[in-house]
Amino acid sequence: MQRVIATMTISLDGIGSGHNQTEERPFGDTSSELIHRWMFETPEENRAEIDEIVSAGAYVMGRNMFGPVRGEWDRDWRGWWGDDPPYHAPVFVLTHHPRASIPMAGGTTFHFVTDGIEAALDRARDAAEERAVHVAGGVSTINQYLAAGLVDELMLQISPTIVGTGLRLFEGVGPVDLELVSTRGASLVTHVRYRVRRTAGKEES
Amino acid sequence: MQRVIATMTISLDGIGSGHNQTEERPFGDTSSELIHRWMFETPEENRAEIDEIVSAGAYVMGRNMFGPVRGEWDRDWRGWWGDDPPYHAPVFVLTHHPRASIPMAGGTTFHFVTDGIEAALDRARDAAEERAVHVAGGVSTINQYLAAGLVDELMLQISPTIVGTGLRLFEGVGPVDLELVSTRGASLVTHVRYRVRRTAGKEES
Repeated sequence: MQRVIATMTISLDGIGSGHNQTEERPFGDTSSELIHRWMFETPEENRAEIDEIVSAGAYVMGRNMFGPVRGEWDRDWRGWWGDDPPYHAPVFVLTHHPRASIPMAGGTTFHFVTDGIEAALDRARDAAEERAVHVAGGVSTINQYLAAGLVDELMLQISPTIVGTGLRLFEGVGPVDLELVSTRGASLVTHVRYRVRRTAGKEES
Repeated sequence: MQRVIATMTISLDGIGSGHNQTEERPFGDTSSELIHRWMFETPEENRAEIDEIVSAGAYVMGRNMFGPVRGEWDRDWRGWWGDDPPYHAPVFVLTHHPRASIPMAGGTTFHFVTDGIEAALDRARDAAEERAVHVAGGVSTINQYLAAGLVDELMLQISPTIVGTGLRLFEGVGPVDLELVSTRGASLVTHVRYRVRRTAGKEES
């Protein structure tokens, strides 16, 4: 059974990113360091989780997670990750503005989907075949998929910080019933994994 | 070193209680069952944590955690917990309305403190002697103590549910730097424990 897994690092107060993203500040007003220290300072301690985050058969991500360009694609932006992004698989980017697909080194190809979150997920499901599809972020993209009842699992990394302001995971999503699958504490992060049992009246499949 | 520990059960989206508390609904619009299932359905699996929650030398709690009475104490409300509350120690209730202390069975005494959160904590510290002081809730009381830099540790129980609306722990608290002390996953709850390193510019002691 192919699973759709939403993955994200958040602060203890649920902030995944700051407001006012720019090219220089991919996470906006919130210092990425506050939230993502675990990934950069303790990669070996968290190798299994990092490997899994980039193990999907295909990815869906929002336009802001892909880059700072708004509106038309009036520049040749190819993501934040250099020539060889860590995904090594098709990545479907949600946008309102058509753009030709971009093959990158290492097997990552960015595809641009203009007909909504369900269409993007359908394409990712087809591309992933039996492997998992990851909804890789950002905050509003995961919230949209959760609210639509399209997420099977949440794989979260909770950083030991209270940020205070920013884009909050789960905001506006409404009630979701979860089942705890696993938790692991590391020195700079708590890994938690949940299965989605029911979203706003939608029964589990 | 005497520690001040804030203890609370929250949903994954940080909700500790609903709006519109009444005597019939201590947790307001949010069903307590959504958040507190772990405590009622799996007490043995969580015995160590439950025992610790009620192990303090003294407690501080907000008026709403103590009861539904607002304004003057115009009725003989003695808490939600019956004749023998689980605290077995002095409990300092924050209120703007004076009231004589109420000794209960089993060693719990409710004291009513009208001169603010620092005064209540001072009295609890004295009463607890070398033992820990617990800030037992509710949400706004813990948020006030956190914002004031008066909490040494957070002992949270995170329930596997997204509630959507209600009183949110950490709201308005501002940046707090934490250190993960421990985490444990049980079938209906994730226990996490943090040491507070710094609150809004206040250095750790």
